[in-house]
Amino acid sequence: MTIFKKLEPFLDQIQQELQHSIKPDYPQSIKDPIVYFLETPGKKIRPLLTLLCAEAVGGKTSDAFSAAVGIELFHDFTLIHDDIMDRDDMRRGRFTVHKKWGEDSAILVGDMMIGMAFEKMLACEAQYIQSVLPLFNEALIKVCEGQALDKEFEIRENVSLDDYLDMISKKTAWLFKLSCEIGAILGGGSAEEVETMRQFGNLLGIGFQIQDDLLDYIGEEKTLGKKVGSDLKMHKKTYVTLLYSQKVGQQSDNANNFPFTISQFSSLPDLKTALFDLGIVDETRKLVDDYIRGAIRLLERIQPLTESNDLYQMVLALQERDY
Amino acid sequence: MTIFKKLEPFLDQIQQELQHSIKPDYPQSIKDPIVYFLETPGKKIRPLLTLLCAEAVGGKTSDAFSAAVGIELFHDFTLIHDDIMDRDDMRRGRFTVHKKWGEDSAILVGDMMIGMAFEKMLACEAQYIQSVLPLFNEALIKVCEGQALDKEFEIRENVSLDDYLDMISKKTAWLFKLSCEIGAILGGGSAEEVETMRQFGNLLGIGFQIQDDLLDYIGEEKTLGKKVGSDLKMHKKTYVTLLYSQKVGQQSDNANNFPFTISQFSSLPDLKTALFDLGIVDETRKLVDDYIRGAIRLLERIQPLTESNDLYQMVLALQERDY
Repeated sequence: MTIFKKLEPFLDQIQQELQHSIKPDYPQSIKDPIVYFLETPGKKIRPLLTLLCAEAVGGKTSDAFSAAVGIELFHDFTLIHDDIMDRDDMRRGRFTVHKKWGEDSAILVGDMMIGMAFEKMLACEAQYIQSVLPLFNEALIKVCEGQALDKEFEIRENVSLDDYLDMISKKTAWLFKLSCEIGAILGGGSAEEVETMRQFGNLLGIGFQIQDDLLDYIGEEKTLGKKVGSDLKMHKKTYVTLLYSQKVGQQSDNANNFPFTISQFSSLPDLKTALFDLGIVDETRKLVDDYIRGAIRLLERIQPLTESNDLYQMVLALQERDY
Repeated sequence: MTIFKKLEPFLDQIQQELQHSIKPDYPQSIKDPIVYFLETPGKKIRPLLTLLCAEAVGGKTSDAFSAAVGIELFHDFTLIHDDIMDRDDMRRGRFTVHKKWGEDSAILVGDMMIGMAFEKMLACEAQYIQSVLPLFNEALIKVCEGQALDKEFEIRENVSLDDYLDMISKKTAWLFKLSCEIGAILGGGSAEEVETMRQFGNLLGIGFQIQDDLLDYIGEEKTLGKKVGSDLKMHKKTYVTLLYSQKVGQQSDNANNFPFTISQFSSLPDLKTALFDLGIVDETRKLVDDYIRGAIRLLERIQPLTESNDLYQMVLALQERDY
């Protein structure tokens, strides 16, 4: 992805600032896991969105820098706690915090990172604190709600597409939305621009999560840096599984057999083949494209869609991602 | 404790507001544990301190009410996550959240309550938000640091009295300090009054924790609402255990045998007898009294120590507590 190559100076800056947010006097037992987690280069999609959205509305990226790092720390907290709940052992190609240091440490490290995240938000320019902080905290609550729904759906059979979309709009898209909205606010955008970037972030986030769900079945472990099939193991309800249940239900022509669950498959390669054969991969990709095209149409209201438009190029790169 | 009887209208108000902070649209899987946890009447020491400190500097308790509830929610978050880490099954006479709903739920419920706590802090009067929020967030970080140290000390032998005091000043006293400081700020106190109430809270908090450590060995389960001996089980380093090691070390007159650990006792009644016989109970109570007298001297700078001084009466009641 050449756009991420171009954005590398930002990535380096974010990476450095993440390291600087770790105070030398933190107790060793939480400092070590935090250093370990933060030193692994992640995609940094959310902080990049914050910086580029600030720029898109005519502001300077430096105005949004502290918030961008705060948003990444917030995202990292959710990953660390979610990995415990989802029993995931690998993340970004390395052991998860709870796998390496135990669940107690991972709980505490996640809690600590909420504080570190708020610290960065509190370092935003004073005039924006009162608009930015309630949004940031609202996102904390919504992301927890989304995670709760995700866990509820694991043991619930009757999950509709609307339920699923509501869940991912909280669990994933809310933070995308927040990243873009806060970037636009700190970049000095008008109320209309802020609202447009907020909606842009929401559509991008929903597209991103549906794509993520697909990659969990058809992605390559080496490229993803984590185990594929984790959703299958946890009986996660995703667009892929909902579509599968629907299609197999229709084929069998027997309403009583509905819903068929994807977890009947014990082998991931078999399931992968079935997902391609049933046209589920294509349909899912189409839905992802729909959301991303929607996001791009909103972006066009703010900036011309040119080759030099970094935000636009980043969205296109995300659309094509295989990791 | 008659003072708590007198403060009952406040307790009822806090209890009601805690229930109101639970939104009807929270997902069931987190709403149920939150309702369950918040409906149990706790001591509510911290929010009462906030309200009474606002009053002590000449303000209205209503100005500090939202913050008081935020501080209680913050305290509740720490209890829920700490209970997981400390393997505690009982709290306030009922099962802990992780015992009843599992660890995953308890992690998520705790996270959610951080957001609920910040929501209350964000509802403080606008002019105070920028002074109150950084203090609140600093406390979140410090309390996590304190909990990390507490867990580190469980597996470390060479813990000094200074190490222990540093740990409890973060883990427990910081929130007492914050409760008093924020109360004084929202009550419109002068910089000097705020600083005095802050120090008052710190000394009170340290005294409270040392007393808590003692009650874990010599308290009555029924009165405490939780199992005694939990610290023993987890090899916690407390003032009681540090004093024990010191005394037994001196008696044996053999430096190589030092430190003796209190965990050599397998029976709690035996240990309890030993703690009384060795004078450890008396010495610990004396230290608690020293801290609480220090707090009272600070309070005297703000308010005369009369029978109608609710804050003073509350401190005296805490000094005598057996729960």
